[in-house]
Amino acid sequence: MRVVVVGHGMVGHRVLDELAAHRPAGDVDDVVVLGAEQAEPYNRVLLSEVVAGRYAPSSIRLPALGERCGRILTGRRAVHLDRAARLVVDDAGQSHPYDALILATGASARVPDVEGLADLPLLADAGVHVLRGVDDAVGILAQVHDARRATVVGGGVLGLEIALALVGHGLATTLVHGGDTVMDRQLGPAAGAAAAGALETAGVRVRTGARPTAVGHRDGRVTSLTLADGSQLLTDLVVLAAGTQPDVDLARAAGLPVSRGIVVGADLASPGDPRVFAVGDCAQPPQGSTGLVAQGWEQARRLAVVIERRRAALTSGEPPVAESDPTDPIDPADGGELPLPAGGTDVVRVKGAGIDVVSMGVSGGTHRPDGARRLALADPDGGRYLELVVLDRRVVGATCVGGGRVASDLVAAYTRGTLVPADPAQLLLRPVAGAAVTTDSPLRMPDSATLCRCNSVTKGQVVAAWRDGARSVGDVAACTRATTGCGGCADAVGGVVEWLRESDPEQASAPARDAAGV
Amino acid sequence: MRVVVVGHGMVGHRVLDELAAHRPAGDVDDVVVLGAEQAEPYNRVLLSEVVAGRYAPSSIRLPALGERCGRILTGRRAVHLDRAARLVVDDAGQSHPYDALILATGASARVPDVEGLADLPLLADAGVHVLRGVDDAVGILAQVHDARRATVVGGGVLGLEIALALVGHGLATTLVHGGDTVMDRQLGPAAGAAAAGALETAGVRVRTGARPTAVGHRDGRVTSLTLADGSQLLTDLVVLAAGTQPDVDLARAAGLPVSRGIVVGADLASPGDPRVFAVGDCAQPPQGSTGLVAQGWEQARRLAVVIERRRAALTSGEPPVAESDPTDPIDPADGGELPLPAGGTDVVRVKGAGIDVVSMGVSGGTHRPDGARRLALADPDGGRYLELVVLDRRVVGATCVGGGRVASDLVAAYTRGTLVPADPAQLLLRPVAGAAVTTDSPLRMPDSATLCRCNSVTKGQVVAAWRDGARSVGDVAACTRATTGCGGCADAVGGVVEWLRESDPEQASAPARDAAGV
Repeated sequence: MRVVVVGHGMVGHRVLDELAAHRPAGDVDDVVVLGAEQAEPYNRVLLSEVVAGRYAPSSIRLPALGERCGRILTGRRAVHLDRAARLVVDDAGQSHPYDALILATGASARVPDVEGLADLPLLADAGVHVLRGVDDAVGILAQVHDARRATVVGGGVLGLEIALALVGHGLATTLVHGGDTVMDRQLGPAAGAAAAGALETAGVRVRTGARPTAVGHRDGRVTSLTLADGSQLLTDLVVLAAGTQPDVDLARAAGLPVSRGIVVGADLASPGDPRVFAVGDCAQPPQGSTGLVAQGWEQARRLAVVIERRRAALTSGEPPVAESDPTDPIDPADGGELPLPAGGTDVVRVKGAGIDVVSMGVSGGTHRPDGARRLALADPDGGRYLELVVLDRRVVGATCVGGGRVASDLVAAYTRGTLVPADPAQLLLRPVAGAAVTTDSPLRMPDSATLCRCNSVTKGQVVAAWRDGARSVGDVAACTRATTGCGGCADAVGGVVEWLRESDPEQASAPARDAAGV
Repeated sequence: MRVVVVGHGMVGHRVLDELAAHRPAGDVDDVVVLGAEQAEPYNRVLLSEVVAGRYAPSSIRLPALGERCGRILTGRRAVHLDRAARLVVDDAGQSHPYDALILATGASARVPDVEGLADLPLLADAGVHVLRGVDDAVGILAQVHDARRATVVGGGVLGLEIALALVGHGLATTLVHGGDTVMDRQLGPAAGAAAAGALETAGVRVRTGARPTAVGHRDGRVTSLTLADGSQLLTDLVVLAAGTQPDVDLARAAGLPVSRGIVVGADLASPGDPRVFAVGDCAQPPQGSTGLVAQGWEQARRLAVVIERRRAALTSGEPPVAESDPTDPIDPADGGELPLPAGGTDVVRVKGAGIDVVSMGVSGGTHRPDGARRLALADPDGGRYLELVVLDRRVVGATCVGGGRVASDLVAAYTRGTLVPADPAQLLLRPVAGAAVTTDSPLRMPDSATLCRCNSVTKGQVVAAWRDGARSVGDVAACTRATTGCGGCADAVGGVVEWLRESDPEQASAPARDAAGV
């Protein structure tokens, strides 16, 4: 089977891995990946951490894949799709024939319509940036030390992370957001106000309900940003974090159905061509796109199942017939072969020093399912707002601003689907110190405890990796993928590795391979 | 010294007791009390409990006072005050000369201006009631069994209690309230909504933002109530709980300064006549009147101190001179001799089956002091709203709707002024069952724990009363005053008495008089 994957981002990378994992032993497919960037695939979610200086650009690379996964061509952009001939042409002029084509082209940063931006053809040189690729991060870092005042446009998760990163570099930073409260896509007004309070405390000036209308510049460098109310912000550096738009040009030019993204069914196939699939940020599945990497990874897993099921049809000359109506939402009864998205693929965590915002599932006060119970703990003077939505004694959504470790407990309850206490409000507070059960000590943590939720890696698997020879967080990441998602578990994984180093020094040289309770 | 007390309600009664307690041993004053009601003084706060059938009218009597307190003339209304001659004339024509006059005339129920009420000269016979005296309670009870539909006008504490009492008798009951939410004097909107939810669950129909404009009647009996929006409620029984107005006629006719109530200074003396004092609901002290009995009792205590300090001046022919400017607010430095109102005199608790509302201090979102921190736990689907206001690590206000025993903990923290935990939100939830410390068991309760907050009676004092021979809640009430305030501690005191009966059976006949840890 000839497979072409267009796009070698986090999801395209995962597609290769999943295809190899689902491929029958002995089968060899011809898999080609076209990556537009020169860089090896990296963890895009951690780009704001690179801007903050907490990670070096090199340290966010994803683990390398084995030979069996396919041929990876970096610096090759797909420029033409000929569906009749079943081939993709790249910008080096090379043609790549396929039986199955997987579009994982991702999304680009949206550049808002602001007067004066068009006069700055080389935005990054002018001090105006987006943050979508590792080059963008490096470009921002290169200018941070000469700048004094920064403006971030867009108060979503990425905008908050960038603003905190720039404040951390000592820049006087203003966050400009069009909505009434920051992160209004995830947070209700009270939670958004608490998050804004945390930003202000961290040193970020927050301007909500503000829309930039023009940039001023001199000698090819940005000097100011004018807002719709006429006020003018002096600034040396602008970072645009005003959302993304799916990269759909290749699909649209080939006549495939495109709405906001590339339209696909529950089986991730295009309704216009059963040999073409789309996953990740470029795709528009029936249940909608969250823009979160966990959803793309889940899609990669399902896609591998679908392609394996359709191998015979895809490799025959006849066009394969979809086995279910691809426009249907996923049938829960079909969970075995087309697994449903796992709970917890929509946990959003803001990464940054001085802020503590986590949101998951149904929250923010919108689209609450019938019969769901909403509880909230508001402590505006304490910078805290916690919200919990419970349905049938399970957490179906939560928002935590300034909640500290309560957030971890809620994420655990949400992703594991554990039953809530008789009084669900108990989840909004941790037991007082005296009575606290330190579930955080690696010693007391059960082997089944999930450390890396993005990749479903348990403590037991980290211990097994240690026994197999992994001696650092990087080694553990290479074996288990732990820490390569949102990165939020890096401390926890590091803590377990540290604990193993101290408690299990003999093991370092012993080749023990027992399962360690996994 | 000749003292005349006008009014023999809860506060007038307490004045006699306090005067006797502060009088130097050996002194005998001529104290006369004029009580307009025929009944012996009773606990007015429990009238709604009488309507609910939980107390018999006879069981809410206050403990009788000893001979030394004064001569009590019941059924005598004061009709004239001659300040020049320093005497009060009663409705039997008898004159009562005084050196000091204490007005404790209380307040009457306010009858709202509703068309048709004037056509019903005998309101109670027509099925329209107020609830201010024990006769009112008896009058309502007499009609409850023939009525099917009841309407309560006024959604304050008393209105809620009456509505719940009537629902308890099986009447289809509607509560009509002019404000946007019930108890809006004490509760913010979210708490008010939770309280209204509890009322609805208990079976009370709640109509907020509704103003009655007319009563309909036939054959001298009420038949309906028309609201300002034109809707008509059919009803056999109407209870007006639309607030009170201070009884100031005697003072006003005598030319004393009267505003809403009888104006007094911090020393409770009238600025118009240093021999005339006013306490309780008829008085208007500089800090305002709460309408709560605890404030009146506190005033009775302060008044006894003031009168004792001015004994020489009051008994001389010369008019006494106030020792401080009576219009000043109470000087905290003067706390020793003119004690400040004790914390916790403004705890409001709604009594009724199926409702759980307690409010104290600064709450409801209004007049929050600078620097105070407000926390709230909202659980509307669970019928719960808890609010806490903290200043300088102490509780300065709280609202509890549907909070169960959390309310007791908050009242204790508020009245005792204990330090709040590092995370004050811990006060909004009790520890989970497994970890609960059962401070409620009499065995574990310290002797210093206050059982009756209205009268500051500790567990140790109840134990001491038991050892002195008290064998029932009534006996304990007679010795200690416990349970004679808001009545909220009746269960707790009963529990301690029960525990003593079981754990200390020998003690019943033994005349032990040791202090039992008080």
